[in-house]
Amino acid sequence: MLAFLGGTGEEGRGLALRLALSGESVIIGSRDKDRAEEAARDLKKIATGSTIWGMDNVNAAEEADVAFITVPYEAQNRLLTQVSGNLVGKTVVDVVAPMKFERGIGAMAVEVSAGSAAEEAQSLLPESLIVSAFQNVSASDLLSPEKEMLGDVLVCSDNEDAKRRVMDVVNLVKNLRPVNAGSLANSKYIEQITPLLVNINRLYKVHSGITITGLE
Amino acid sequence: MLAFLGGTGEEGRGLALRLALSGESVIIGSRDKDRAEEAARDLKKIATGSTIWGMDNVNAAEEADVAFITVPYEAQNRLLTQVSGNLVGKTVVDVVAPMKFERGIGAMAVEVSAGSAAEEAQSLLPESLIVSAFQNVSASDLLSPEKEMLGDVLVCSDNEDAKRRVMDVVNLVKNLRPVNAGSLANSKYIEQITPLLVNINRLYKVHSGITITGLE
Repeated sequence: MLAFLGGTGEEGRGLALRLALSGESVIIGSRDKDRAEEAARDLKKIATGSTIWGMDNVNAAEEADVAFITVPYEAQNRLLTQVSGNLVGKTVVDVVAPMKFERGIGAMAVEVSAGSAAEEAQSLLPESLIVSAFQNVSASDLLSPEKEMLGDVLVCSDNEDAKRRVMDVVNLVKNLRPVNAGSLANSKYIEQITPLLVNINRLYKVHSGITITGLE
Repeated sequence: MLAFLGGTGEEGRGLALRLALSGESVIIGSRDKDRAEEAARDLKKIATGSTIWGMDNVNAAEEADVAFITVPYEAQNRLLTQVSGNLVGKTVVDVVAPMKFERGIGAMAVEVSAGSAAEEAQSLLPESLIVSAFQNVSASDLLSPEKEMLGDVLVCSDNEDAKRRVMDVVNLVKNLRPVNAGSLANSKYIEQITPLLVNINRLYKVHSGITITGLE
């Protein structure tokens, strides 16, 4: 069971939708149970026949085998403090890219004292297996299932088993390729690719992503 | 005339070689004039018939129409202080990715108080047009002209004319594609992709690069 905590936003719904379409059972979690159930109902209209639940974040975390953190960075600390007891021993995928928008500059990375959102999550959830992934994938493309996804998902973690498990999840989405990006210390660089892509999107009027060349 | 300041290292020689092969006249600059001349002679053995000069950095900067900064970050401040008077009004391409290696972690970005090496260069050379580019291209692949280059060169600057000029230079190297990456404030994210790629290289035993998907 894959749960998307704070999953009513574009990124959470997009990932949940793609993974439901691949045959996985998914849960949308939210602070507000009603909003979670509404998002789940809406996704089931697209992914007919799929198992998609809506729950509050605590129950979603409790039911999860793998939990995805899909809140804005500003909400991560509060969410993880709330659900830490429900995620002990579990693989937790941090999708968060800390970012702000400045007039005249565009998207900018927010400095994180732990180095990255994922490293901060690991310190808030010391008994969970944190994996950083999916920050650079276009949420809006994920929500358009007729669109083939492009690009790579950089996956990093300090736990190799959890990393492999999440790389297998990436492979469930057609055309997305998982790339082993080493230890969790690399998450900072991956998270900061997101504001760069947002700024490129604005210049080219596209939804961009990245691919690592030369791997084969 | 394209000059590569601190150009006796892999990145400087590699870029100089590829651009010489495309028909450009290039200068290798070095603190040590003899080493610059030796590097130029070596490159001319590969790019026979090309115009490749070796000079000390000050003379190389003076002769340059476009100057490339290809020193390690630790040497950038000293180099730019030395040649600032020779680069007034010129396009200066900063190729530097501030990086260190930590045992057990691998490559790590070095924090720069200006935000990035390129922004620091702009503050050291207020009368030059700083463009950030080429940090994510494999130096060793550049030096193997039988190898086709792969991937994109992200180019950012606060001066649109200088940025376009450098994007034209990227196009001279077969198969490299320039991507407009916006203002110089984005250089931080681009520079930090380099340690990420270095760490991926170690895991996959490759020379990786990046491509931006979805631009066309």
